[in-house]
Amino acid sequence: MHIVGANIYIAENLLLNQEFFSGILPDAKLVIVSDQNVAMHYLSQLVLVLEKYSIDTLILPAGETNKTWQNTEKIMHLLIKKQHDRNTILISLGGGVIADMVGFVASIYMRGMKLIHIPTSLLAQIDACIGGKTGFNYLGLKNILGTFYPAQAIIIDPLVLHTLSKREYISGLAEAVKYGMACDADFFIWLEENCQQILNRDLQRLVYLIQRCCEIKSSIIKQDMHDLGERRILNFGHTYAHAIEAASGFNHYLHGEAVAIGMLLATKLAVKLEICDISLCQRLENLILKFGLPSKLNHKLCSLETVNTKLLMDKKKHSAQLTLILPYDLGRVRVVENLMDEYVRIR
Amino acid sequence: MHIVGANIYIAENLLLNQEFFSGILPDAKLVIVSDQNVAMHYLSQLVLVLEKYSIDTLILPAGETNKTWQNTEKIMHLLIKKQHDRNTILISLGGGVIADMVGFVASIYMRGMKLIHIPTSLLAQIDACIGGKTGFNYLGLKNILGTFYPAQAIIIDPLVLHTLSKREYISGLAEAVKYGMACDADFFIWLEENCQQILNRDLQRLVYLIQRCCEIKSSIIKQDMHDLGERRILNFGHTYAHAIEAASGFNHYLHGEAVAIGMLLATKLAVKLEICDISLCQRLENLILKFGLPSKLNHKLCSLETVNTKLLMDKKKHSAQLTLILPYDLGRVRVVENLMDEYVRIR
Repeated sequence: MHIVGANIYIAENLLLNQEFFSGILPDAKLVIVSDQNVAMHYLSQLVLVLEKYSIDTLILPAGETNKTWQNTEKIMHLLIKKQHDRNTILISLGGGVIADMVGFVASIYMRGMKLIHIPTSLLAQIDACIGGKTGFNYLGLKNILGTFYPAQAIIIDPLVLHTLSKREYISGLAEAVKYGMACDADFFIWLEENCQQILNRDLQRLVYLIQRCCEIKSSIIKQDMHDLGERRILNFGHTYAHAIEAASGFNHYLHGEAVAIGMLLATKLAVKLEICDISLCQRLENLILKFGLPSKLNHKLCSLETVNTKLLMDKKKHSAQLTLILPYDLGRVRVVENLMDEYVRIR
Repeated sequence: MHIVGANIYIAENLLLNQEFFSGILPDAKLVIVSDQNVAMHYLSQLVLVLEKYSIDTLILPAGETNKTWQNTEKIMHLLIKKQHDRNTILISLGGGVIADMVGFVASIYMRGMKLIHIPTSLLAQIDACIGGKTGFNYLGLKNILGTFYPAQAIIIDPLVLHTLSKREYISGLAEAVKYGMACDADFFIWLEENCQQILNRDLQRLVYLIQRCCEIKSSIIKQDMHDLGERRILNFGHTYAHAIEAASGFNHYLHGEAVAIGMLLATKLAVKLEICDISLCQRLENLILKFGLPSKLNHKLCSLETVNTKLLMDKKKHSAQLTLILPYDLGRVRVVENLMDEYVRIR
């Protein structure tokens, strides 16, 4: 088993490991929240493994459009109805959507209860569950309400990725590419060299990939939990990605797909601003294409004009000029402030 | 001006002091949230003092029954509509109800924005605004949802207490009595000796009272922000008080009035359990009566049976036996666990 930081456990078959759970879970009531898709594969199995605990379960509808206050309330209604208190351990079993809502509830129910994530998508394993960001979408605004609330433990079983659809799996790889581009040239090169085995979900590679991503994110969060400084570099590609997701109604692009396009847009801008060499842009595009991620906007899915409008809304919201994270070398990005509209706008 | 801890400012006429605000407020957008009663007296005055800032204001209905998700949402709708981001400073101008909701919004909007409290009730000045507890009532459960989120600054002008109704003012004194009973014998004696001047709202006494209460609470919170150990002693009288408030539908008793009755019930229990001497109970009752606080339940306002039911519900919720904070000497309390129903029950 690989233990990253104090509380991230990575190993195959962890989800079936009764002894492991007994070792990290105190004698407490448990509430497990999952979504329809994940529950079908893993919920009853997990309940069986945890048979010695008193467990309530809740299954929510899957998908980003269900990351709402209404679904968040369903979790709280269960907690209240079954008279859970802050000693109950709330467990998320699912992707980023479930983890974000469950984490939010854990942070506000009785001003904070215990929280464990069992991420089942690659994106959640290497990004969404690491670092304590919780939240839900509200009035059409993504993650506008949320908290910083790190989980007591994050339990990662790479074997669960085998039931992930190809498209979901590949989408998660975009965040791995981001860690390489933004923080770790060696890891980017490793991704290039192991591309095919990663696509084949080779277990050994998967474990290394997850472990390295968790290590990178953990080390950054240790310096800047609240996203005020260093952590912002993890937003590489994300300003464009959020605009793309919003412009397409959070419906047509998976998050990682939008991030892939966003990273390329940011890198192209960096080339235009003469911050980085065009060869870096080509190298990023190659890896994105090798992973089968989209490299540019499909104008049938969302109009350029709407994406640009959303981008500028973001700017207005954060007052003055837009700030972007731009690469200047492999594994190196920097925060570039006060960018003018005509540079940022997508053409 | 008295500065308690890093960020509690106490002085008369602070609310009119333009220079003071310029000194502590950076150049930022402000949103001020108040309630109908307080806004009538102080909102336009405050807006005038802060004329050089860009300000949005919101007035909510007053009272504990309005500490709801629906009113919390009104604050967030304003923030979203006016495109505020996490650099905006959210200011509460009111009692504990407003402070709790505003604090909650500040803690979750964009995962945390800047927060300043300007408490206008005695209870909010010496208790509710100190220590970062935020929250609202939900499905009939008091403060069941909330966060720990300390304000950047708490600005206390004792002069605002002169527009408080006599009943509201006296209710606040119950928390001062609690600090004396639970933490500081000298302060309890000071309250006894200055009783009449305090009731007359003598400014010099008020400043000392507020300052001492803030100091006591701040020092306890420094040791135990998240209410897991030391901070629990501040719950002296509150288990009974919450049951009384719940049993009377949060309508008939002000919080401090319920706390006064609750402290006496807890002290009577301590006498019965031979934890403390009966003279302490008499001394507490004398001070409560001198302040004009209620010393026992009015059975016309809520039935003994309902209060007992709520008490035992609290017990069930927190699993196993009930825990109470009981006094053993003047200025000294301790956590007493595993109390049996027949002792705790009110007769």
